[in-house]
Amino acid sequence: MKQYRILIVGFGIIGKGLLKTLEQKQAYIRKRHGVDLRVSGVCEINGCLLPKGDVDLSTVLSKPLAEQEGWRQGLKTLDAIKESTADAVVELTPGNIQTGQPGLNHILAALESGKDVATSNKAPFATNYKRIMDAQEKTGKTVLFEATVGGAVPLLNLYRETLKADSIESIYGILNGTTNFILTKMTDDGVPFDAALNEAKELGIAEPDPTYYIQGIDTAAKVVILANALMGQNITFSDVKVTGIADITYETVSLASKHGYAIKLIGDVGAREVSPRLVPKHHPLNVSGTLNAIQLNTDIARDVTVIGRGAGPRETSSAILSDVITLAGRK
Amino acid sequence: MKQYRILIVGFGIIGKGLLKTLEQKQAYIRKRHGVDLRVSGVCEINGCLLPKGDVDLSTVLSKPLAEQEGWRQGLKTLDAIKESTADAVVELTPGNIQTGQPGLNHILAALESGKDVATSNKAPFATNYKRIMDAQEKTGKTVLFEATVGGAVPLLNLYRETLKADSIESIYGILNGTTNFILTKMTDDGVPFDAALNEAKELGIAEPDPTYYIQGIDTAAKVVILANALMGQNITFSDVKVTGIADITYETVSLASKHGYAIKLIGDVGAREVSPRLVPKHHPLNVSGTLNAIQLNTDIARDVTVIGRGAGPRETSSAILSDVITLAGRK
Repeated sequence: MKQYRILIVGFGIIGKGLLKTLEQKQAYIRKRHGVDLRVSGVCEINGCLLPKGDVDLSTVLSKPLAEQEGWRQGLKTLDAIKESTADAVVELTPGNIQTGQPGLNHILAALESGKDVATSNKAPFATNYKRIMDAQEKTGKTVLFEATVGGAVPLLNLYRETLKADSIESIYGILNGTTNFILTKMTDDGVPFDAALNEAKELGIAEPDPTYYIQGIDTAAKVVILANALMGQNITFSDVKVTGIADITYETVSLASKHGYAIKLIGDVGAREVSPRLVPKHHPLNVSGTLNAIQLNTDIARDVTVIGRGAGPRETSSAILSDVITLAGRK
Repeated sequence: MKQYRILIVGFGIIGKGLLKTLEQKQAYIRKRHGVDLRVSGVCEINGCLLPKGDVDLSTVLSKPLAEQEGWRQGLKTLDAIKESTADAVVELTPGNIQTGQPGLNHILAALESGKDVATSNKAPFATNYKRIMDAQEKTGKTVLFEATVGGAVPLLNLYRETLKADSIESIYGILNGTTNFILTKMTDDGVPFDAALNEAKELGIAEPDPTYYIQGIDTAAKVVILANALMGQNITFSDVKVTGIADITYETVSLASKHGYAIKLIGDVGAREVSPRLVPKHHPLNVSGTLNAIQLNTDIARDVTVIGRGAGPRETSSAILSDVITLAGRK
């Protein structure tokens, strides 16, 4: 059976979720795809776990990496990427939305050392899309990044693999679950913005500092990626006009509702704009809670809308693993 | 550039729509996929158009096939399939839902003569799924049938290509646009069943004899295909318990609406059942008009819902052409 080995870079909530999910799904992936997917190492900020054989998925999450056989304190991720004999790097670090680092350097180093890349890290693609694509072309390796937009919702692969004759005319939708939760609460429960935000924080849906989401920055990063990956553009974050939801009052939401509309934070990819918009109540994009919903308008299929879970470590693993299996299939 | 040649079998509304769409998209497909997609012939019930070179897409729809250079009156489709040197047969005939014919024989003959198949014909798959899969395995050729379920909505390819690590736990949804139009009319405009049906007929959404749709038979055929193709089952039409929408009264719809629900004809693939069900108004499956909406529930991604156009010659071409391009890519 074909073996495919990955080096995991980033050991936060997404990295741990991926390892846990992979342990559960390893046998399934062998059976469905004929691919034996193995983890050759795990890097985090203080060093890397690089055991002689492969990482034992049944025990790796049971104690700190630094206490495990094969831990190399202080080994830099970039050096581990170069040294590793893995087939692919799975890049899962948190990214700086201004510079794309450290993910950008990890991705470039992986490609330059002959490895494919699968990643959930938005920042490198929102800041340096062309540079990554150029490196991909130069090295002949492949970068897949389905998980950077819409979590478990298939978008990049949906277009690439299922709409092969279609040209995209526009893409827009709800690309952030936190803001959708807040706006849904305001609409359904008739509460003001602050109360809805506090509930989101209490439920762990919004982070302690949710500015990044509320100001629309997270949505804008995804707009940039969709514009570049699916609409042939070459834009960065600064090309997107962004208005967040902090100024949406309960009165506005209530008035819209009375007239048959919901207010949603919409990323409009063709227009390069993120802003609160009125969505008719019967429209496919009018989804509740933390759901993401994205509509692709094309010349043949007309409109295809995909709805699903935009966040969560397990859900995001769906997209990352699907990409890794695709890479393995091309080996 | 790689050439890929198809023989089109069936020259009704779908076949004509495909030829028209292909003419418009041929250059796009060359550019995006590096595939020069050509039509080597077109068969209908009275004979086949098999010109010496390829079919000229710019003129083929301008006059009856029988008046064109290369027309062979009385040539049987099965003989043309065997004789043809095309890479694939695109099967677009109307199918008998009891026997799967004549599409079944066309598909088997194509495989046995070394050709791939792309098709929108539900009947062979709802009646003889295993036989087709066995023939596929025996011949080493490939049958793709995205267009048999949900028209332009990606479902089979969505699961195969974008959810590679996910196991499906359930699939259900609105798989027929005619019944959805009727139920939406009853809900939104407060009209009884017969009035909604008549409007559907006037708009050309329902055929003169819409029994096939209203009794849920069309939905049941799609349930069979999804069960077999995505849930590893081997069932036929008679395994599905079917209740249509003819007994849904305006009073029922109205009562449901008052309590926050819409009534939709739902195909439940895991339960092997087609029946009218209550769908909460905020649920992603509560879509209006002729839209199709299908929810896949999986172990990792949780729920992924896809919404789009379930019918129409141009929309269906999106799925057929995507499959043909996939086949060409594997040549």
